Amino acid sequence: MDRGAKEDGRGGTRIVPVILSGGAGTRLWPLSRPGRPKQLLPLAEARTMLQLTLARLACLPEAAPPIIVAAESDAAEIGRQAAEAGVAPAALILEPVARNTAPAIALAALSAEPDDLLLVMPSDHVIARPEALADAVRAAAPLAAEGWLVTFGVPATAPETGYGYIRRGASLAPGVEAAAAFVEKPAIEVATALVASGDHAWNSGIFLFRAATILDALREFAPQVRDGAAAALAGGSRDGEAIRPDTAVFGRSPSISIDYAVMERAQHIAVAAADMGWSDVGSFEALYRIVARDGAGNSCEGDVLALGARDCLIRGEGVTVAAIDVEGLVIVATADAVLVARRESSQRVSEAARLLKERD
Amino acid sequence: MDRGAKEDGRGGTRIVPVILSGGAGTRLWPLSRPGRPKQLLPLAEARTMLQLTLARLACLPEAAPPIIVAAESDAAEIGRQAAEAGVAPAALILEPVARNTAPAIALAALSAEPDDLLLVMPSDHVIARPEALADAVRAAAPLAAEGWLVTFGVPATAPETGYGYIRRGASLAPGVEAAAAFVEKPAIEVATALVASGDHAWNSGIFLFRAATILDALREFAPQVRDGAAAALAGGSRDGEAIRPDTAVFGRSPSISIDYAVMERAQHIAVAAADMGWSDVGSFEALYRIVARDGAGNSCEGDVLALGARDCLIRGEGVTVAAIDVEGLVIVATADAVLVARRESSQRVSEAARLLKERD
Repeated sequence: MDRGAKEDGRGGTRIVPVILSGGAGTRLWPLSRPGRPKQLLPLAEARTMLQLTLARLACLPEAAPPIIVAAESDAAEIGRQAAEAGVAPAALILEPVARNTAPAIALAALSAEPDDLLLVMPSDHVIARPEALADAVRAAAPLAAEGWLVTFGVPATAPETGYGYIRRGASLAPGVEAAAAFVEKPAIEVATALVASGDHAWNSGIFLFRAATILDALREFAPQVRDGAAAALAGGSRDGEAIRPDTAVFGRSPSISIDYAVMERAQHIAVAAADMGWSDVGSFEALYRIVARDGAGNSCEGDVLALGARDCLIRGEGVTVAAIDVEGLVIVATADAVLVARRESSQRVSEAARLLKERD
Repeated sequence: MDRGAKEDGRGGTRIVPVILSGGAGTRLWPLSRPGRPKQLLPLAEARTMLQLTLARLACLPEAAPPIIVAAESDAAEIGRQAAEAGVAPAALILEPVARNTAPAIALAALSAEPDDLLLVMPSDHVIARPEALADAVRAAAPLAAEGWLVTFGVPATAPETGYGYIRRGASLAPGVEAAAAFVEKPAIEVATALVASGDHAWNSGIFLFRAATILDALREFAPQVRDGAAAALAGGSRDGEAIRPDTAVFGRSPSISIDYAVMERAQHIAVAAADMGWSDVGSFEALYRIVARDGAGNSCEGDVLALGARDCLIRGEGVTVAAIDVEGLVIVATADAVLVARRESSQRVSEAARLLKERD
């Protein structure tokens, strides 16, 4: 392949990473907050999740500079973190309000060339083996260029109830199969059966498709999303790499995920296998599993004294934390809020955050 | 009895409460701190432990205004809390440094009349039935006037290893016996045997004796304590009710408890039974046992969300606390420090506080 010809920005099958950084999760409360979303925090190591995502692009040197889609309110911090990571985005699309992934991807697709292959990546996942993702991207790129909507599937090794599952169908290319069915957040019995079946993969939320293909699919399955994004860009402004859609127009866009709007409905969905050491870091339990732990099974950060504590995730953010003889807990202390939860109850953290917000 | 004659401050068997408020415990860290000792905190209810102690004096209306012995650094706060409680102390003895209870009692005894009966009370205990203490004081007063050193004993109902035990000997008066032996903080096997024996009481740390008697005992068993206190008062100053011993002189006093200096050595020690609902609130477990709890067994104060939590003591001091599915924990969050401990490990809290202090 002649990379040079593909990197000139005109046609071809140029790969353009699209980093989705607009989320504002509550599942890692009180670390993540409105205004301090998970992807902008250094959760798994010294660099933030966004910076790790940007650094991952080094495994795909043939890719063009990325498009980042983020919240307008995070613009300055995103710019700072990208610069620190040594990445100059081709575009920084600043959403005036969050409208989930389908409108965000529509904005990116409309800002790219029709033939660009958009490699859509959440900015708040951990990928331990990015080269496996890069290999899968290369394996899937010809299919994407042909008009397939490619999702990257992770070997389902445990009956996770918080993930989406994809059933793998007919082989399309080495490591790439047609997606036969989607199952979103199954009950534990169903999840156990899916894992046992051996033909299901976790949906990583990473996608590869032509800009024109996804826009066509949006036109078919979610026309308000496509048209709303187009109108918001037409009425918006551009300042250097910063693109600001019109606030009122974009605010009227439906709030919907790309999975629900397109992937679970469209034809020609492919799933590319990527055994990439993936975690969505979607809970403190998930974070606990991927971080380094000491001999007592604790992962401590900040000014922490663990006295007889075992198998705990402990974070003291500017606050001293002493944990005595406790086991299997998540303890997160910030200047104004403290979480103490059983690790196995990590999924209830967003419930707690919501209840506290309602109470305020 | 002619109370009027006894309250004129000249001789007789006037009862003068002596409130010891100089402690700076670490067993309730991070609630209690240097500069924020336990007795000045509202732990068991809205009033502070010192205020509860002062309010308790209402059960003994024949008593004279109290002498308070406290740290110089707490002078303003003590004055504020006493005024709020409507108590005007006869004297506020301000220790420049803490030297444990024997020197504090020596200062008070030297500031009283020789025949005054000093009712020495720690300021950081809870007494649910103060009238039972008042009855015991009245029962023991004649013996104290005769020269007995009276300690108040609480029925030992559980094998507590953090308490001192007193073996009750020959009867001296109804409800008052000679103390036959002291056992300080026994091992659990010993404590179990002492409780089973039926003739041991917990040492409440509350005492009644003539000022002259305790000074004589100190002269015999701890002359440096008595002479040091006398010299410190002679070289010190008095400003209204505030008495300030000389810093350098008092600083040279031995640091020793009245139990160790006198009560465990002297003759004529009596123990008066007082089933007064006593707790020394010496640990978070002890605090948990005396506070009101909700249907899930939790005691929550501050901005606390207990989601599936059970049997926990939770305190959020200016900090939001969410506890999810945890059981039997102490969770204490302050602006700069957080404690999470198993309730049964409450005794290790001071160890944690010490380790953290060493680390600083």
